Amino acid sequence: MSARAVAELVGAKLVYGDGALALHDVAALGTAGPGDMSFARGCSHLQGLDTLQAGLCFCTPELVEPLKSLGVRTIAECAHPGAAFVKAASQLVTPIMAMRATQGGKTQANLAKNIVIAPGAVIDDSVVIGENTVIGPGAVIGPGCVIGCDCMIGAGAVIGFTLMGDHVDVRPGAVIGEAGLGTVDGSNGLVAMAHFGAVRLEDDVRIGANATIDRAVFGETHIGARTKLDNLVQIAHNVTIGSDCVLASFCGVAGSSTLGNDVLMGGRAGIADHVNIGHHVRIAAASAVMQDIPEGETWGGHPARPLRAFLREQVAIRKLAGKKGGNDDAER
Amino acid sequence: MSARAVAELVGAKLVYGDGALALHDVAALGTAGPGDMSFARGCSHLQGLDTLQAGLCFCTPELVEPLKSLGVRTIAECAHPGAAFVKAASQLVTPIMAMRATQGGKTQANLAKNIVIAPGAVIDDSVVIGENTVIGPGAVIGPGCVIGCDCMIGAGAVIGFTLMGDHVDVRPGAVIGEAGLGTVDGSNGLVAMAHFGAVRLEDDVRIGANATIDRAVFGETHIGARTKLDNLVQIAHNVTIGSDCVLASFCGVAGSSTLGNDVLMGGRAGIADHVNIGHHVRIAAASAVMQDIPEGETWGGHPARPLRAFLREQVAIRKLAGKKGGNDDAER
Amino acid sequence: MSARAVAELVGAKLVYGDGALALHDVAALGTAGPGDMSFARGCSHLQGLDTLQAGLCFCTPELVEPLKSLGVRTIAECAHPGAAFVKAASQLVTPIMAMRATQGGKTQANLAKNIVIAPGAVIDDSVVIGENTVIGPGAVIGPGCVIGCDCMIGAGAVIGFTLMGDHVDVRPGAVIGEAGLGTVDGSNGLVAMAHFGAVRLEDDVRIGANATIDRAVFGETHIGARTKLDNLVQIAHNVTIGSDCVLASFCGVAGSSTLGNDVLMGGRAGIADHVNIGHHVRIAAASAVMQDIPEGETWGGHPARPLRAFLREQVAIRKLAGKKGGNDDAER
Repeated sequence: MSARAVAELVGAKLVYGDGALALHDVAALGTAGPGDMSFARGCSHLQGLDTLQAGLCFCTPELVEPLKSLGVRTIAECAHPGAAFVKAASQLVTPIMAMRATQGGKTQANLAKNIVIAPGAVIDDSVVIGENTVIGPGAVIGPGCVIGCDCMIGAGAVIGFTLMGDHVDVRPGAVIGEAGLGTVDGSNGLVAMAHFGAVRLEDDVRIGANATIDRAVFGETHIGARTKLDNLVQIAHNVTIGSDCVLASFCGVAGSSTLGNDVLMGGRAGIADHVNIGHHVRIAAASAVMQDIPEGETWGGHPARPLRAFLREQVAIRKLAGKKGGNDDAER
Repeated sequence: MSARAVAELVGAKLVYGDGALALHDVAALGTAGPGDMSFARGCSHLQGLDTLQAGLCFCTPELVEPLKSLGVRTIAECAHPGAAFVKAASQLVTPIMAMRATQGGKTQANLAKNIVIAPGAVIDDSVVIGENTVIGPGAVIGPGCVIGCDCMIGAGAVIGFTLMGDHVDVRPGAVIGEAGLGTVDGSNGLVAMAHFGAVRLEDDVRIGANATIDRAVFGETHIGARTKLDNLVQIAHNVTIGSDCVLASFCGVAGSSTLGNDVLMGGRAGIADHVNIGHHVRIAAASAVMQDIPEGETWGGHPARPLRAFLREQVAIRKLAGKKGGNDDAER
Repeated sequence: MSARAVAELVGAKLVYGDGALALHDVAALGTAGPGDMSFARGCSHLQGLDTLQAGLCFCTPELVEPLKSLGVRTIAECAHPGAAFVKAASQLVTPIMAMRATQGGKTQANLAKNIVIAPGAVIDDSVVIGENTVIGPGAVIGPGCVIGCDCMIGAGAVIGFTLMGDHVDVRPGAVIGEAGLGTVDGSNGLVAMAHFGAVRLEDDVRIGANATIDRAVFGETHIGARTKLDNLVQIAHNVTIGSDCVLASFCGVAGSSTLGNDVLMGGRAGIADHVNIGHHVRIAAASAVMQDIPEGETWGGHPARPLRAFLREQVAIRKLAGKKGGNDDAER
């Protein structure tokens, strides 16, 4: 599809570049090549970028000049570049809406020997599965999956767009590889961001029951070898987690954050988006981490801070309240 | 069924009104009509009501006179009115326990054209589904559902008693329209409250993977147009959410609370029951909201308060603890 | 299998006792008998034990003498006793990896009369189910389950190794009886702990949608009569909960903790591992309970403390921050 055709399709105005430029795929603005379509969220999106190679970029009027000088090939101006991108991408990239699948082991998938497929499992014809892997009853393995050897996929787990090493243990009800939650403004309110990336689970990863791991917008959501997630954990799009980490129940990691190796998170600890956690960090249960944590530290609290400081503050608060004696107003 | 027969069925004493009165349905006490059966939880349940039209009301002895004067047609006295209501309702209203369904697209449901039903999906014969909708593998569409056009129901999602607009996106594993958790006292401990209401999802709503949305006890749990819920969000019975809201992962809204339009809730924010949140409110991640928030405000903390106050308090606590110097007791 | 054969299998050194001793099963160190294999985590694991009867115990070198004097029959020394135990147990105890099941009511399970099995349900041949029980569409009842009368198993629920009384109500998507998350150190990083126990749900228990309840490592995870769990609740391995408790959405109870009868937990309250909660305790929403709570008390906060103290502290903090006036640094 040409840049001009794409722009017209969504009602954007091609204001710069050769409209005949051919587009084949989509990518994040920073990594897009000359055949890729992308979009700019706003001025802050351009910070730290000194050269761009995107084929087409949707943007609002004030970003046209900056994008020109950064090297973007063609530029399409519109009021809602994110929504324009989502709409255009649905035409440019072939959507995969329905599975090419049959039920109960009659799949056309590429199966190695000694695989057990339980009753009710549904496996897309494009899937590749390694030796000795067991697919539980009612599990769904959708498009874009490569599953290694000796894996265990629990009953009712739903997996798509996921690259899985060996000895991976996915417990029942886990949902891996769905589009995450991102929104862009459209002319008529919120529009959900489309997702094009994948999930990668290294060898010996364990995913708990009813946990959810979203695919990346572009690129990969990544979980390192031997990392263990408990039940009901949520890993958002584009997160990177190192090896040998343990995340207890209800832990959540928001979009694009990173964890090093050997990070332990107590139950119900949460990490905000775009935060970096160093190796060997310990995070206390119920913590709300809003900022980076350096290697080897132990943090806790809401918002999280070094655990010693949190505990010291708790003592100080207790003394402060104690000094004031019985306060009847507060003791409802 | 007559009021007298209903009372006898559950061992309650009909102490007022015409026992021959015919009952056809159940309703909340405040909205019940002359053919409806209901119950009174206690004195506080009557506050703010100045007239009632319920056909039959179960209550404890001290509420008989107040209910008479408010206009209730017949009154049945007993020790556990909630449990009596639940038992009587199971006889008065036809229970829907088992699905009238066949598997894999052989359903008798009312399907528009161009619908995709993936292998393993189970659809009740009473269901209505609009054009171009896709039902994922293993999804279950139970009794009482009307699904619009261009909807996407993810693999393994379980939906019942739900009225859905167009372009609704339900991700895998979501459970929509189950009875919520309410309990009433019975003669032998806790009894689960029965549910008779529905869920309504307006156009372009998005429900994340493994999220749960309970049907109303009576009436509807309601989610407005274009509102997006992330994975593992919980919406309790009788909640009303406006349009264009975004609720990040692990957000929870407890029973009967309301949110205006364009409300944003960060990850793991919770709202207590019977709380009202105005339009355009922002709630920080990990907040615990225990009271109403006026339109346009930004709140955070546990318990939640205006975010500026929360941040100011954090600074004050830090200074307080710092002044005291190293406190070895706290630094375990 | 002999103690010597087991030790050789995992590369451990049999340093004490009769290598010909026959082993038949696995058990926790404190309860293991002469035919059971077990392991010692470390010195603290032996505290409070004055006599042991285990057939074989894996341990690190410094625990050999203490274990001898406590009465263990044979001892195998190695660097990673937990990982050795997990590996040996996978040989000693017959693993149940694949279900012996057929789909859609053609199961060989032991079914009482008047049972409804919806389309797509998968039931292992070893299962026993009582009268009038309804199994929802796509539900999976795996090995080791005994289900009582008048139970309702929701669509897509996944249940294994669970002993269930009568009138138990399991909502859709709940996962009951999976191995919990425990890790032991191995020579090449983290290894997941194997689980051998069960879950017991007494009469009239209610489990919410997408909730998760893990089986015990050894013994039973136990939930008492009439206890009601809301959606998305997590109960870890070896937890014991009394009767008539109510746990609202997102509540979590970590491993081996106990709750008495009539305990109420508000939404998103969490209890750390190995904590004991007395009868009639009330825990406020969003609390993080890190220590025991005596019978009848009401606690709240993060970390949780008596609710009156928490509320008094909130007032004190507010006054403290107020006295300092507007602090611009904090008001970003």
